[in-house]
Amino acid sequence: MIKVGILGGGQLGRMLLQSAANYPVQTFVMENDANCPAAHLCHHFTIGDIRNFEDVYNFGKGLDAITIEIESVNEEALERLESEGVRIYPKPAALKIIKNKILQKQFYKENEIPSSEFIITANKLDLNQHIDFLPAAHKIALGGYDGRGVQLIKTKEDLSKAFDAPAILEKLVSIKKEIAVIIAVNDEGENAVYPSVDMVFDNRLNLLEYQISPATLTNKVLWKVEAIALKVVKDLKSSGIFAVELFVDIDDNVFVNETAPRVHNSGHHTIEGNYSSQFDMLWRIILGYPLGSTEVILPAAIVNLLGEAGYAGEVVYEGLQEILQIENVFVHIYGKKETRPGRKMGHITILSKEKQELIHQANRIKQTVKVKSVN
Amino acid sequence: MIKVGILGGGQLGRMLLQSAANYPVQTFVMENDANCPAAHLCHHFTIGDIRNFEDVYNFGKGLDAITIEIESVNEEALERLESEGVRIYPKPAALKIIKNKILQKQFYKENEIPSSEFIITANKLDLNQHIDFLPAAHKIALGGYDGRGVQLIKTKEDLSKAFDAPAILEKLVSIKKEIAVIIAVNDEGENAVYPSVDMVFDNRLNLLEYQISPATLTNKVLWKVEAIALKVVKDLKSSGIFAVELFVDIDDNVFVNETAPRVHNSGHHTIEGNYSSQFDMLWRIILGYPLGSTEVILPAAIVNLLGEAGYAGEVVYEGLQEILQIENVFVHIYGKKETRPGRKMGHITILSKEKQELIHQANRIKQTVKVKSVN
Repeated sequence: MIKVGILGGGQLGRMLLQSAANYPVQTFVMENDANCPAAHLCHHFTIGDIRNFEDVYNFGKGLDAITIEIESVNEEALERLESEGVRIYPKPAALKIIKNKILQKQFYKENEIPSSEFIITANKLDLNQHIDFLPAAHKIALGGYDGRGVQLIKTKEDLSKAFDAPAILEKLVSIKKEIAVIIAVNDEGENAVYPSVDMVFDNRLNLLEYQISPATLTNKVLWKVEAIALKVVKDLKSSGIFAVELFVDIDDNVFVNETAPRVHNSGHHTIEGNYSSQFDMLWRIILGYPLGSTEVILPAAIVNLLGEAGYAGEVVYEGLQEILQIENVFVHIYGKKETRPGRKMGHITILSKEKQELIHQANRIKQTVKVKSVN
Repeated sequence: MIKVGILGGGQLGRMLLQSAANYPVQTFVMENDANCPAAHLCHHFTIGDIRNFEDVYNFGKGLDAITIEIESVNEEALERLESEGVRIYPKPAALKIIKNKILQKQFYKENEIPSSEFIITANKLDLNQHIDFLPAAHKIALGGYDGRGVQLIKTKEDLSKAFDAPAILEKLVSIKKEIAVIIAVNDEGENAVYPSVDMVFDNRLNLLEYQISPATLTNKVLWKVEAIALKVVKDLKSSGIFAVELFVDIDDNVFVNETAPRVHNSGHHTIEGNYSSQFDMLWRIILGYPLGSTEVILPAAIVNLLGEAGYAGEVVYEGLQEILQIENVFVHIYGKKETRPGRKMGHITILSKEKQELIHQANRIKQTVKVKSVN
């Protein structure tokens, strides 16, 4: 049986492994926490640091293929493994571009992919020269994740919040909508594009409220979104699953915000909502099967379950009983023992033909389910 | 986190564990083979004999609840564990009735549940007194599984095939259709009935060809089928998942064939075809959540992938590549290393609104996918 390793043992690994059990594949996971969400769902679990060369190299050298569930992995080890014949999804060259925000922005520019204007800053002091570029977002080059590593710098007064490390200063776009597109690419370069997703934010808190798929867009904007997302993925020259996040501005211009070279939160609805989920699709790519269908079975919304502010420690879920009574709702709890404010603890999917029903149930879930701690 | 054990580590355990990863539950499996399909998908795997009192008792005594994926488990140990407060799905009293074909038939009779006429036989010689009862099916009381433990005795000449052990001799019914109904019962006695399933047989080989859900039945027959199946489950007085298999004869009379007190092959289409799958539903029951919805998302068919006659040893799957190109098809390979003739190695689900499409793809899959061995 083909041997496939996953670097990282969080919820993305967990859902990949739920899906792996449909296929003949032997699974390996490395993570530094033996109680992580994916640890008990693979054939072989290894305690190790995914950022450490030796750990990643030793984990990977007996495997046929490796994939990642987080960008912050040791890419030198992956390059070495690739040169020794291990197939890596995504390719280390693509990962390298994406995991560094400076390289990622330069990549968009070089390939004429629309993305907001930016300036590279080496440290905090650098920003003083760019007051006239504000308002802007300061994004740290390395290590940003799940909203961390981004600071809004609207005026001079915000300069103290800037990162004192290599970063990009990105011009703010007048955003009308945020859209995500998941794209699959196989080793033959064939691709499959999932219907785009509307990411609806709470403007007050700047938190993702819910996601709806397919997105409501005019055909003209939809075609632009899909063409740009596909160009990003083609120019990365790598097989795998990619999530391209885009902005649509008030004039219907489309900009790439950022790209993830892996299964992604914005594709979780595909588990129930599409014929081949993003997780199923990645196994098809790795195992050399035909690409699956991205067709919609039913339109879907998802709500992330985040750790409530003010609660840390052993997790308890409030309101699940009520939500599990709703006929068209699917609960995914990630099995993390401890909650922290803002930590992703699960998600809930809603299926319905009616967009109003999706929004109604998404709001109901957000008001009802609370992730708190025992004390 | 609640601790739940599964006795048996085959494909039913595997699919239960794929589903368990959506909920906060710590999973335990016992089986005598460390390479069984479910071994790597639980938190704690124990090597042990599910038929042995000590093994089952020791496995279960620290757990909150236990379920089974096969009937041939040590029921005395389960009774002991139940008396000590471990919740058992199904209750040992119900399991006891069902796992012995003699007790199962007597249970139908005592509860006035229509089932074909039968005679209890203690050994082979006994059958000589019942020549006038032929043609009949001889079914061994204990240990029959997946078609084993049944012999057709049409005439005196077939008597040599009879079992020399306690068994029942069951009058043959002129079968027009075979139907299965999956029913869920929670600890409060509430139930949820899945739409019934048409089990289509190859009359030549007496092998299940494919299953289609929902079944095509007149309302009158459907109501009879559902009422009888529900009566079986209510009279068993146990929570859990139950699969009731029934015959419809040429006069539209409905008879119970047999009942399984667990998740069942005839419910596999519910993974993709229904809002709450049979596996999801069992977790809801065990974890004390509300029952899920048995509503159909899309009509479904399934085809079992059985080991091809004449092949034994390390498994290879022929034709998967072709079948995985079909948009509305879902492959489930059970991860068994070795094939044997007739062994259940996987199943494939088809979703479609059109019954003709379900039948067409089911036939295509049967002709295309072959489970063979390396040599």
